[in-house]
Amino acid sequence: MDRRVRSSVAGPKGILAAVLTPMDEDLKPNHHAFAAHCHRLLAAGCHGLSVFGTTGEANSLSVNERLAALEGLVDNGVPVETLLPGTGSCALTDTVRLSRAALGAAGVLVLPPFYYKGVGDDGLFRFFAEVVERVGDDRLRLYLYHIPQMTGIDLGLPLISRLVDAYPGVVVGTKDSSGDRERIMTLCREFPDFSVLAGTETLLLDTLRGGGEGCISATVNVTSRLARRVHDAHASGKDDEAEALQERLTQVRMSIEAYPVIPALKQLMTRLTGDEEWRNIRPPLSGLDERRTKDLLTNVPLAELL
Amino acid sequence: MDRRVRSSVAGPKGILAAVLTPMDEDLKPNHHAFAAHCHRLLAAGCHGLSVFGTTGEANSLSVNERLAALEGLVDNGVPVETLLPGTGSCALTDTVRLSRAALGAAGVLVLPPFYYKGVGDDGLFRFFAEVVERVGDDRLRLYLYHIPQMTGIDLGLPLISRLVDAYPGVVVGTKDSSGDRERIMTLCREFPDFSVLAGTETLLLDTLRGGGEGCISATVNVTSRLARRVHDAHASGKDDEAEALQERLTQVRMSIEAYPVIPALKQLMTRLTGDEEWRNIRPPLSGLDERRTKDLLTNVPLAELL
Repeated sequence: MDRRVRSSVAGPKGILAAVLTPMDEDLKPNHHAFAAHCHRLLAAGCHGLSVFGTTGEANSLSVNERLAALEGLVDNGVPVETLLPGTGSCALTDTVRLSRAALGAAGVLVLPPFYYKGVGDDGLFRFFAEVVERVGDDRLRLYLYHIPQMTGIDLGLPLISRLVDAYPGVVVGTKDSSGDRERIMTLCREFPDFSVLAGTETLLLDTLRGGGEGCISATVNVTSRLARRVHDAHASGKDDEAEALQERLTQVRMSIEAYPVIPALKQLMTRLTGDEEWRNIRPPLSGLDERRTKDLLTNVPLAELL
Repeated sequence: MDRRVRSSVAGPKGILAAVLTPMDEDLKPNHHAFAAHCHRLLAAGCHGLSVFGTTGEANSLSVNERLAALEGLVDNGVPVETLLPGTGSCALTDTVRLSRAALGAAGVLVLPPFYYKGVGDDGLFRFFAEVVERVGDDRLRLYLYHIPQMTGIDLGLPLISRLVDAYPGVVVGTKDSSGDRERIMTLCREFPDFSVLAGTETLLLDTLRGGGEGCISATVNVTSRLARRVHDAHASGKDDEAEALQERLTQVRMSIEAYPVIPALKQLMTRLTGDEEWRNIRPPLSGLDERRTKDLLTNVPLAELL
């Protein structure tokens, strides 16, 4: 690890929540509750907010709904420079439109187009290249969102290398939700000017030690305080403390991961805020049934959350 | 097989092309060329036109692009009642908007939401139910689009049964692109008031004999004349002739299927029309390279196409 080299990396670092999207009875994003949740997460220690990711049900929202919700956050005082909005979509033109709208943000997190399978690196390269060219703005900071269990698409290292070489200073990082520790370590090692953020806080300390920037995680919606303590202990060189805190963080994460994560988190937010609206979720996702909800609320250490 | 029962099924029957979308240099749908291709397919024997499916690169287009292209077809004289537009999307609100816009058509072909994996039948049921309720119009005729190799979603028979029971006369059929002959035969047998269309013309005669309605196929963009002859020979009880024609149709299909199908078809259209614009394709798909194009044009019986 060479901290000097990696310290030159700008953009989102540390603890980022993959922010949940609260919805009203009609399943429309509730802009007020959304901004309130963002403020709550920043107050609880998050360095940044990855809105409109998998956890945020972004692909269950139309482009217009995403644009309106982003505007709603800014209008409600969420600092735009803390945001890393997801702008991925199957359609090139949608990703371009969303990415342009997010140009003031810390960066954009871009899924590969995920409808067609087995398309090959040339087609994927061309997609990302077209996004960069069509956005056509120096402010663009593009983070590659690798989550093969949803997309069915492998963003392999040769493709990442090709994109970084073609667009230095623009293709600047990745959120890696593969859960593959070795891959994350390799990315940290082989791409020194590239921000690597793990998709789960169970790999937070490993990623930081490997020279990565931190994590972007669904469960950070409720574990931000604890995740921040791991980060800070590491940053101040308190290795033993960082390790002990990481162990606890992993336990808490695992207690939530035993359930379908997005419904479980929406259920936990219902409990933590007292607001029943948090239960609303867009199909194809479904809420937890009564039995599993009871089970979840028994098994998760509520007092340690948020 | 009971032809009397199945003859009560309304809506698209026979030979439907999964219509390609021609695009200009900027990769925008070319409305004029699109309508011209639709007219060409109807003249070549297609009973109907399944626009905006997998072959039509629909998920690579924004919702606004799909709406404009649909309007362009109608404005250019393509009879709306011949159309079965794809209106599937990951976002409930997009599918509702697209399906409403297509209400004058023969029906709409709806993918399951395909971002999240492993969501379970309750979430999928709720998605389709919300589409039906939100469109809220008696004219809606919904066809379930089963293509698990792209969506990663299994539309199982219990789910189909539940949807047909909940929305009789609305959830009226399926395009089955699984390539699973047994599944198609089972659907024909167990869902008598349900239109079954195979996703490949290699199963055309089998599907017709099993009591299904026909096929919706990518390669029908160039095989429509031959596919129609299979259909007509079957309809007039000429079993031997139907079988011989089906054998040839399958051979032709296989000669195209040896290449990535959508790029190969766009290449064939380039050759058949002399219009180079047909080569344009949106990423993540890529055109065929020179070597494979040459190979394709040698191995496919050009004289028998369209």
